[in-house]
Amino acid sequence: MKNSALSALGQRTTEPPISWLMHAALSRPKLISLAAGFTDNASLPVAEARTALNQILRSPKAGQPALQYGITAGDTTLRQLTAEYLRKLDFQVSSSFSSSSLVLEPKSRTRTKDEDDKTYFPERLLITSGSQQLLYMTTEALCDEGDIVLVEDPTYFVFLSILQSRGLRARAVRLERDGLDLAHLESVLQSLKRSGELRRVKMIYLVSYFQNPTGVTTRFEKKSAVLKLLKKFERDAGHPIYLLEDAAYRELCFQKDNKAKSLVSTPSPRPSGERAGARGFEFETTDLLTPPLSSLRGGEGEVKSALAADGAADRVIYAGTFTKPFATGARVGYGVLPEPVFTAVKHIKGNHDFGTANLLQQLFVRTLASGIYEQQVARLQKRYAHKAHVMKLAIKKHFPPAVEWWEPEGGLYFWARLPRGLPSGMKSKVFLTALKNDVLYVPGEICYADDPARRKPNHEMRISFGNASEEDIKEGIKRLGKVLRKIVE
Amino acid sequence: MKNSALSALGQRTTEPPISWLMHAALSRPKLISLAAGFTDNASLPVAEARTALNQILRSPKAGQPALQYGITAGDTTLRQLTAEYLRKLDFQVSSSFSSSSLVLEPKSRTRTKDEDDKTYFPERLLITSGSQQLLYMTTEALCDEGDIVLVEDPTYFVFLSILQSRGLRARAVRLERDGLDLAHLESVLQSLKRSGELRRVKMIYLVSYFQNPTGVTTRFEKKSAVLKLLKKFERDAGHPIYLLEDAAYRELCFQKDNKAKSLVSTPSPRPSGERAGARGFEFETTDLLTPPLSSLRGGEGEVKSALAADGAADRVIYAGTFTKPFATGARVGYGVLPEPVFTAVKHIKGNHDFGTANLLQQLFVRTLASGIYEQQVARLQKRYAHKAHVMKLAIKKHFPPAVEWWEPEGGLYFWARLPRGLPSGMKSKVFLTALKNDVLYVPGEICYADDPARRKPNHEMRISFGNASEEDIKEGIKRLGKVLRKIVE
Repeated sequence: MKNSALSALGQRTTEPPISWLMHAALSRPKLISLAAGFTDNASLPVAEARTALNQILRSPKAGQPALQYGITAGDTTLRQLTAEYLRKLDFQVSSSFSSSSLVLEPKSRTRTKDEDDKTYFPERLLITSGSQQLLYMTTEALCDEGDIVLVEDPTYFVFLSILQSRGLRARAVRLERDGLDLAHLESVLQSLKRSGELRRVKMIYLVSYFQNPTGVTTRFEKKSAVLKLLKKFERDAGHPIYLLEDAAYRELCFQKDNKAKSLVSTPSPRPSGERAGARGFEFETTDLLTPPLSSLRGGEGEVKSALAADGAADRVIYAGTFTKPFATGARVGYGVLPEPVFTAVKHIKGNHDFGTANLLQQLFVRTLASGIYEQQVARLQKRYAHKAHVMKLAIKKHFPPAVEWWEPEGGLYFWARLPRGLPSGMKSKVFLTALKNDVLYVPGEICYADDPARRKPNHEMRISFGNASEEDIKEGIKRLGKVLRKIVE
Repeated sequence: MKNSALSALGQRTTEPPISWLMHAALSRPKLISLAAGFTDNASLPVAEARTALNQILRSPKAGQPALQYGITAGDTTLRQLTAEYLRKLDFQVSSSFSSSSLVLEPKSRTRTKDEDDKTYFPERLLITSGSQQLLYMTTEALCDEGDIVLVEDPTYFVFLSILQSRGLRARAVRLERDGLDLAHLESVLQSLKRSGELRRVKMIYLVSYFQNPTGVTTRFEKKSAVLKLLKKFERDAGHPIYLLEDAAYRELCFQKDNKAKSLVSTPSPRPSGERAGARGFEFETTDLLTPPLSSLRGGEGEVKSALAADGAADRVIYAGTFTKPFATGARVGYGVLPEPVFTAVKHIKGNHDFGTANLLQQLFVRTLASGIYEQQVARLQKRYAHKAHVMKLAIKKHFPPAVEWWEPEGGLYFWARLPRGLPSGMKSKVFLTALKNDVLYVPGEICYADDPARRKPNHEMRISFGNASEEDIKEGIKRLGKVLRKIVE
């Protein structure tokens, strides 16, 4: 048989670029990978997970439900706890879920009934196998082949893989230090309206906290403005246009010792940490002067999610995860979805796996209800803050001045830009020399959608401090700096 | 907005019929459900899972890998163990994996190198979130909208939901007591050839062991014959036609005390347990006289999987699961796939979730390697054999003679047929009266594909002994028998 029986999707779906990077890492034992988005090994909550699992499985009767099938939408208690948790993140409402009791008492709150009922409602919350599964199923539920999804420029490359695999078109919207360039978003929508393609636009995808790859956090006001703008174009689209907010890095902010302060939403004077120039890092695709990122502290209680915006209940799809802030080996994520998307995605999940592993769901029921989860998040925030600091010092010491870079305030990544004309892609001299010198980064170009409206930037790099040890961060940056100095100078 | 933004898939994907049944169960606290395919609660291996998880998480260093991301295809050791396990199921080769050591020593075997290399090879084995995920992704990789999948008549209804959701067409092939009606398969293929639709046929889906819903096990020789037949039509199809073997119930056979005997493949004289007539249960859609099911004992070592057939290495996709025979709350399944399907499905999984939860994978590494897994399977086989026996006695006692039924030799289900003209569907008098009397079954009609070539049978029922307690099995069958007697007589 010469012909393949593969479907169009089967033929289109290519190896993720990151796989190649991981293979490269495996074949060079001395290589220091600053590429993978793996999380910090040393702080993984092994003892905490063991304790929780022992409680779950303490007796046959207690343990049996965790080892049995659950329902497709997810465990009812976990959905309640997650709804409470999200409400708390957005409004710092101290809720009953941090008590050690699993019994959830309804609490009186100062928020409106409408908000409560429509937004943070367990019945519109779906438990998934990591937030990645939610991204996939949401795309399935909304997009036909040829449809258009608006994305940040650059964005999370595995989401771009989903779009490519499913035959969808991405249109890139410039990113500023505080999130999407609203003027550019409007002009993209206008141009799609003019070309008659607005009816193909189903959603905009924002990685709104400590974005992968740039570290940018989208200001709440911008999320609200995006929603308003989308609404304006819906009449011409002929259908709702959704805002898919990917908050995977939300909890990984660095300012956590200081809880009282974190409730204050006024800008902080803390200067940004970039090396190059007083205005610091300017996104290539941006032509607006934007407020400094340092006014947007991000994280819990500071930058609200799009769920808190007017009109969110009908238009915002929120993707969250317990995986990254706790244990990436226990893949549980969740989505908050408006109808009819919620029901469609739930039915799709019925066909995918009819429910995420109940044992893992029970692990999060227990760690959320006992407060263990939040304690671990607090530990992780300090740990990543420290590792980011180590990386920053190393970058300051070893990178040549011609390389611009941006210090993140959360997440797992530094984003750096080489001088124009010096490509950083997988076949570039920089990348190959770095590999030869046993250090790996993610070439920035894989984070850019194929968009005919602009040339794809190819001289940036995503550098992760998530998985590498402190020693490896220092040594890896030293190696990378040496390569850069040699090539740049 | 009046119009929905949902995709065609999003609009097509409907609530699974089983959901409705589960809702019905929740709203009637006294209801005994013989509907759900949940497994036996009392025999869930709570202590075994706890022990294994404690070993996995015994120290930070030992536990960290289990709480970290893995790779998309699955844990390397688990893939090795699974390949060994499958080889053992098919050839009763005692392998090294039941030692308590995780180190796998290559063993000399009496099988040919070709078999070893091409069939039971860890590198073509993919770990998934239950076998359901493999069914979904395989369908994505192979089938475009409008493509045709051949299925048994009746078959697993969630697979039918996948096909419906993805806009695929099912063509039903009659089922006999020992598996597919080969003559009918050939005539279906001939008719598709005549109508020029053969190029749309991508695979045939067989639930080959203790089939859901009928309990039928497909004879090995029939699997080989199916492969040969498909091959014959490939030239006209213009591409490979795959055999997707769903072996989800493979390990749930009832004859396990008797290991020596189980290796003998000669027919057993054990009579079938049906009530009606000397020839016993005859599938409605079958017009061939077939050998009695009792000659096909099924299960480990007795009926080989399609992987053991000639030509399997290039054409058989095997879907297995650790979930059903161990703990349904720890959803880990696996697939063995030929190229190019393996690579396509792996890439698709990269977009779905980039790997099944590592913690759950480690649970199976440990329980497989320690022998705990096989011990649990042996316990479960006895347990289900007993529960099936309890159900059989109750059915004998309470069902009217006009109702035909078939005693399974494994799996979780009895299959029964009401007299012609007496429908069993969700709106039928039988179903509603049963519900009123607090007993629930799965109407047979939901297990039949929409196939224009035949009228859909509507007077059968799937009755599960998997989840109900012994007392509930007795009481549930008594209630159902009473309803049937009243309506039939």
